[in-house]
Amino acid sequence: MKATVLYGARDVRFEERPEPKILKPTDAIIRLSLTCVCGSDLWPYRGIQPVTAPQAMGHEYCGVVEEVGSAVKTVKPGQFVVGSFCISDNTCPHCRAGYQSGCQNLEFMIGAQAPYARVPLADGTLVALAETPPNDLLPSLMAVSDVLGTGWFAADAANVKPGATVVVVGDGAVGLLGILSAKQMGAERIIAMSRHESRQKLATEFGATDIVTERGDEGVARIKEMTKGIGADSVLECVGTLESMMQAIQSTRPGGSIGYVGVPHDAHLDLQKVFFKLVRLHGGPAPVRRYLPNLIKLVLDGKINPGKVFDLKLPLDQVAEAYRAMDERRAIKSLLQP
Amino acid sequence: MKATVLYGARDVRFEERPEPKILKPTDAIIRLSLTCVCGSDLWPYRGIQPVTAPQAMGHEYCGVVEEVGSAVKTVKPGQFVVGSFCISDNTCPHCRAGYQSGCQNLEFMIGAQAPYARVPLADGTLVALAETPPNDLLPSLMAVSDVLGTGWFAADAANVKPGATVVVVGDGAVGLLGILSAKQMGAERIIAMSRHESRQKLATEFGATDIVTERGDEGVARIKEMTKGIGADSVLECVGTLESMMQAIQSTRPGGSIGYVGVPHDAHLDLQKVFFKLVRLHGGPAPVRRYLPNLIKLVLDGKINPGKVFDLKLPLDQVAEAYRAMDERRAIKSLLQP
Repeated sequence: MKATVLYGARDVRFEERPEPKILKPTDAIIRLSLTCVCGSDLWPYRGIQPVTAPQAMGHEYCGVVEEVGSAVKTVKPGQFVVGSFCISDNTCPHCRAGYQSGCQNLEFMIGAQAPYARVPLADGTLVALAETPPNDLLPSLMAVSDVLGTGWFAADAANVKPGATVVVVGDGAVGLLGILSAKQMGAERIIAMSRHESRQKLATEFGATDIVTERGDEGVARIKEMTKGIGADSVLECVGTLESMMQAIQSTRPGGSIGYVGVPHDAHLDLQKVFFKLVRLHGGPAPVRRYLPNLIKLVLDGKINPGKVFDLKLPLDQVAEAYRAMDERRAIKSLLQP
Repeated sequence: MKATVLYGARDVRFEERPEPKILKPTDAIIRLSLTCVCGSDLWPYRGIQPVTAPQAMGHEYCGVVEEVGSAVKTVKPGQFVVGSFCISDNTCPHCRAGYQSGCQNLEFMIGAQAPYARVPLADGTLVALAETPPNDLLPSLMAVSDVLGTGWFAADAANVKPGATVVVVGDGAVGLLGILSAKQMGAERIIAMSRHESRQKLATEFGATDIVTERGDEGVARIKEMTKGIGADSVLECVGTLESMMQAIQSTRPGGSIGYVGVPHDAHLDLQKVFFKLVRLHGGPAPVRRYLPNLIKLVLDGKINPGKVFDLKLPLDQVAEAYRAMDERRAIKSLLQP
């Protein structure tokens, strides 16, 4: 089969690779219905995260089970499944506490920008649907596996409650789905920090009530002004830089909460500055597996349509262009059809 | 009157100062029944925090109201009061949300290592007792105003719940009273990280079930071993260095919480390291005012005896020795009798 490999900065190749095989009795092989490019794929693509050896790319996925290992009990060939980008056993103490992304046997999914992929710990990672979903729901179902699950965790970690005033820092796909998540959790006011028109539009569609185009100190001043000097109850930090984190911290009321899901890069936080702000910080790789059943149901029931974040759709063999379009911010998120 | 002034590193003087006066209608003047030296006083005393001008020291206090300004309504001369080291109006949105230490009119108490002190925003800062308490309860009542209130906030911010496994990093007075607080909140297992015998003894008396003497990576390894590789549900960080914070983060289970109350000094936290640990962080200057009624009641009812942290008692005019003893770790905490 042909699949996606990153060789170095801006060097994505679609090339011949061996088909995945069952390596352990707990594995499953799936045929991907859809796959896509993640914002976090751009870190190595841009050379910010070094690429020391060719990497099989892709960790967002949904599809049909082709084959399972002898120990797999909860999914079987022919079933349509959605999984998390975090591979988890779903039985260890951390998984049982709802933190599958901190699983004692944690692995990260790789090689999903391909026609077929191997999913380790299939029982702990995949959720099978009762029946094969209609094609028009596939983008939304795939979004659940990482980008929505991550936005949802940002809102959950930021402790979004009914009636809350929420700020979302970052207008990438995760930030936009953070808005959708905050809306689902009952937030009354959702302020999106965005300066891109197409993203503002989607933000509003997902539930943003206000748009702030200013950044940094000016952005913080606007938030304070809009909240009568109080600050937000909950802030979703969906970027991962020190600047975005400081913007989030300064926009939060004392006792308010920040959910951060952008993988921090070279971000060293001065704890004394955080200390006097009295905020709560929680974040990390999202425990998507915890949310999968609920999020899949919301999609199947037509309550949410997270697939709207895909504003570029390409056949898988054009994966290099899918990366370029996101790198150049021509696309919010690229969908790939194997 | 004679009172305490810090002139520079290790230069504490007990010298003639003007008696405090009502400056604003919301002020009260109190006659101190007791006062003491705080761990945070040691930062400027040790020269780690620069002293640019002579500073009137002391922010922990209880005593009898001498005089009140014309706008003060809830306390009156003759009443025994306990206050917070944070001066708050107790009416602004942050105070109403329980974060009086983030009050929109926040000031920090000063000049309490003295026979008399001025307390601004008396209505929002002080709590009057129904009657004058017996002398033997005075050390415990004064402890409420900062050191216990801060330990309590550490436990509260670390989300200590009945049955929890708790780790306390730091065996100073705040850490020790963090142990007492965790015990009150129903923690089942309380692991104190301490290498000083007298502190270990008090830790055990306050409710510690285990003592770990190792620090850093070795300390973390011990905690992991003691918790079957899982880590603690709640960790109280009561020091304020980067090392103690990393020790706390690495000792916490994914989804667990850290309450940090040691004022961070030169602590720049690598957010990426925190990210993958999936911990919750909350802390800052303690909103003691929120806890005052409950903590005063616990002391008056004889349920807790936080005054035990005072292992050195001196007349106020020996304040310089009180600082020295704490600096040299000969005393956990020095009590001063005006």
